Amino acid sequence: MKVSVCRKAHFNAAHRLYNPKWSDEKNWEVFGKCNNPNYHGHNYTLEVWVKGEIDPETGYLIDLKILKDLIESEVEDRFDHKNLNEDTKEFKELNPTAENICIVIWKLLRAKLDPKMELKVRLYETERNIVEFDGN
Amino acid sequence: MKVSVCRKAHFNAAHRLYNPKWSDEKNWEVFGKCNNPNYHGHNYTLEVWVKGEIDPETGYLIDLKILKDLIESEVEDRFDHKNLNEDTKEFKELNPTAENICIVIWKLLRAKLDPKMELKVRLYETERNIVEFDGN
Amino acid sequence: MKVSVCRKAHFNAAHRLYNPKWSDEKNWEVFGKCNNPNYHGHNYTLEVWVKGEIDPETGYLIDLKILKDLIESEVEDRFDHKNLNEDTKEFKELNPTAENICIVIWKLLRAKLDPKMELKVRLYETERNIVEFDGN
Amino acid sequence: MKVSVCRKAHFNAAHRLYNPKWSDEKNWEVFGKCNNPNYHGHNYTLEVWVKGEIDPETGYLIDLKILKDLIESEVEDRFDHKNLNEDTKEFKELNPTAENICIVIWKLLRAKLDPKMELKVRLYETERNIVEFDGN
Amino acid sequence: MKVSVCRKAHFNAAHRLYNPKWSDEKNWEVFGKCNNPNYHGHNYTLEVWVKGEIDPETGYLIDLKILKDLIESEVEDRFDHKNLNEDTKEFKELNPTAENICIVIWKLLRAKLDPKMELKVRLYETERNIVEFDGN
Amino acid sequence: MKVSVCRKAHFNAAHRLYNPKWSDEKNWEVFGKCNNPNYHGHNYTLEVWVKGEIDPETGYLIDLKILKDLIESEVEDRFDHKNLNEDTKEFKELNPTAENICIVIWKLLRAKLDPKMELKVRLYETERNIVEFDGN
Repeated sequence: MKVSVCRKAHFNAAHRLYNPKWSDEKNWEVFGKCNNPNYHGHNYTLEVWVKGEIDPETGYLIDLKILKDLIESEVEDRFDHKNLNEDTKEFKELNPTAENICIVIWKLLRAKLDPKMELKVRLYETERNIVEFDGN
Repeated sequence: MKVSVCRKAHFNAAHRLYNPKWSDEKNWEVFGKCNNPNYHGHNYTLEVWVKGEIDPETGYLIDLKILKDLIESEVEDRFDHKNLNEDTKEFKELNPTAENICIVIWKLLRAKLDPKMELKVRLYETERNIVEFDGN
Repeated sequence: MKVSVCRKAHFNAAHRLYNPKWSDEKNWEVFGKCNNPNYHGHNYTLEVWVKGEIDPETGYLIDLKILKDLIESEVEDRFDHKNLNEDTKEFKELNPTAENICIVIWKLLRAKLDPKMELKVRLYETERNIVEFDGN
Repeated sequence: MKVSVCRKAHFNAAHRLYNPKWSDEKNWEVFGKCNNPNYHGHNYTLEVWVKGEIDPETGYLIDLKILKDLIESEVEDRFDHKNLNEDTKEFKELNPTAENICIVIWKLLRAKLDPKMELKVRLYETERNIVEFDGN
Repeated sequence: MKVSVCRKAHFNAAHRLYNPKWSDEKNWEVFGKCNNPNYHGHNYTLEVWVKGEIDPETGYLIDLKILKDLIESEVEDRFDHKNLNEDTKEFKELNPTAENICIVIWKLLRAKLDPKMELKVRLYETERNIVEFDGN
Repeated sequence: MKVSVCRKAHFNAAHRLYNPKWSDEKNWEVFGKCNNPNYHGHNYTLEVWVKGEIDPETGYLIDLKILKDLIESEVEDRFDHKNLNEDTKEFKELNPTAENICIVIWKLLRAKLDPKMELKVRLYETERNIVEFDGN
């Protein structure tokens, strides 16, 4: 019997969408105002969902304080109040679309999480634009 | 590796729940105040979830502007500020329960969406009443 | 020393915006799709704010169960799952704009509330359109 | 073709996290301030998701008034404004973590729900801590 | 020219409503299930609004990190994961209604805040029950 | 008798907090990570509140479509998907704190709004940090 637990977190970052292999015209055509070379930004909201067996001793799947600290060290410290394109090695070569940010966060957390646990990451770029990734 | 992306949208509409094969008494008994012959209404909130592969050139699963425009032309233009029972052909014969509205919207979007992409529609009739349909 | 307390409530209703003294053309020009003769509808969210002195015996300004019941009998029973234009005497002659609905609700509650208490009503027609009235 | 419908509900309760087989020191070490012997509390928000076939006569999967009443009798009457550890038989021996509360609620509802319908329960302990259980 | 700034915070606590001068019957009659002797609890959400002149050097009315720390030390450390009736000196003699909690928090913050700044505190006991106090 | 009406809007922007008259050390000390020279960003949510008399012909204080268009032309077109420090003349010399952004928006809207109407602007920089300005 498996339960899922979720911890929410937030980070605020600047980014621009940009493909260096394309001309400026093509970048503008595809990414529109998201391509602004001076960047724009978002309050990103993150839901980290972990699935697995409950520990009968604690009644926890995972201590949410541990999950909170993991999100802090792997995600918030890395991306909060940063320029994703300029300040992070993860998006030096990778376009920081919501899709790619979501997958990067999944990989960062997956590497640190007990392999017996399943992981799903949901990222809200705005109230209306959401991405979800579970590794499959 | 597949991600899901979601675009939210809203429309405001009037409706009544009603089965023309039943007596007024039975309609009232089953649908209660939702059966009011003069209609009532809702702010419907829609989440359209699309799942598929990311385009490595753009970092997008689908340009959310395209998804937004699709929701506008297929759903909002059709249902926003309308009386679902009176003004739409979709609910001339079909009872506009949240379940049926959700399925109708799924079919309208499915017909226009790239067949390689999976589709799930979530419809909030009120903050407390939600329906979800993914075609299965 | 005065505190304010608020109770939230909800009602779902159909309406249309319409001035019977105007031509159909002028109604359409001014009210646009809100003028649809077959009605549309909303989930209205209501905040009822009451201000006054705390009763030192109870620590309450007003028992919120009493305020909840008052909102139910004066507002929800009257407007929930109704067509505001057709089913209510309040909007037989009065255009049910959010502004007018807010004032009507304020007057209905004002008539029943202890005159020593101040009253403010906030009405959300949608998440993005809000009206507030405090009698001044 | 199956749809899912959800009804939201709320209850407010006190609890403490505690394993009677452990020393006070170990309880404090594992559960931290959640172990406060005088209890703390939460506004729990519940989403009850039911999945199944639509009844073609009604257009309903399940009448949400029935689901609302079921949640009231099985969950709210049992847990609302209660001390989960002291006032309920369900948590006399079971640690009332969000995980365990979610599973208990699932079992209470599962026992009363039409076996043809699938059931999933999501419980928000705070805005940032969420648990989900679907019986698998 | 004055602006207002707000910082939100949260704390989770147990409480019961109770007037020691009354019989159990009267307490039950007035406070209903909020009078449960074993306590119930809430996720309290707090909005702390400060009003004053902007510092032209910083563009800040007040550094929100300072306001955040003040709320932490004066409110969260005192009330979070506590039983308000049992664990706090503020509510040893004072009934912990939302009104009284709001006023107590206002006084705690007022004592530490620059007297040139105005202060207003809004407390959400549930999503539907809110209290506000500004000292007047 | 005056009512207030509100229209909500959103814009996403990058910014950094910085006082050019200070050393880098002092900027870092005062503004912390908000001083990141490569910028960070936010989803800003805006509430524009207008207060005045209802037009008895329309039942409107102001047509919210007009207010929506005004916010679009004066605020969204100017700031959405922009770097506030680099791309806007308003913040070339002025530190783009939430306080200053709120006052700038108030002035931009005030200049275009009917002088008979009162104006209040509320700006959410994050869910937890809010600023309000009404010109007084």
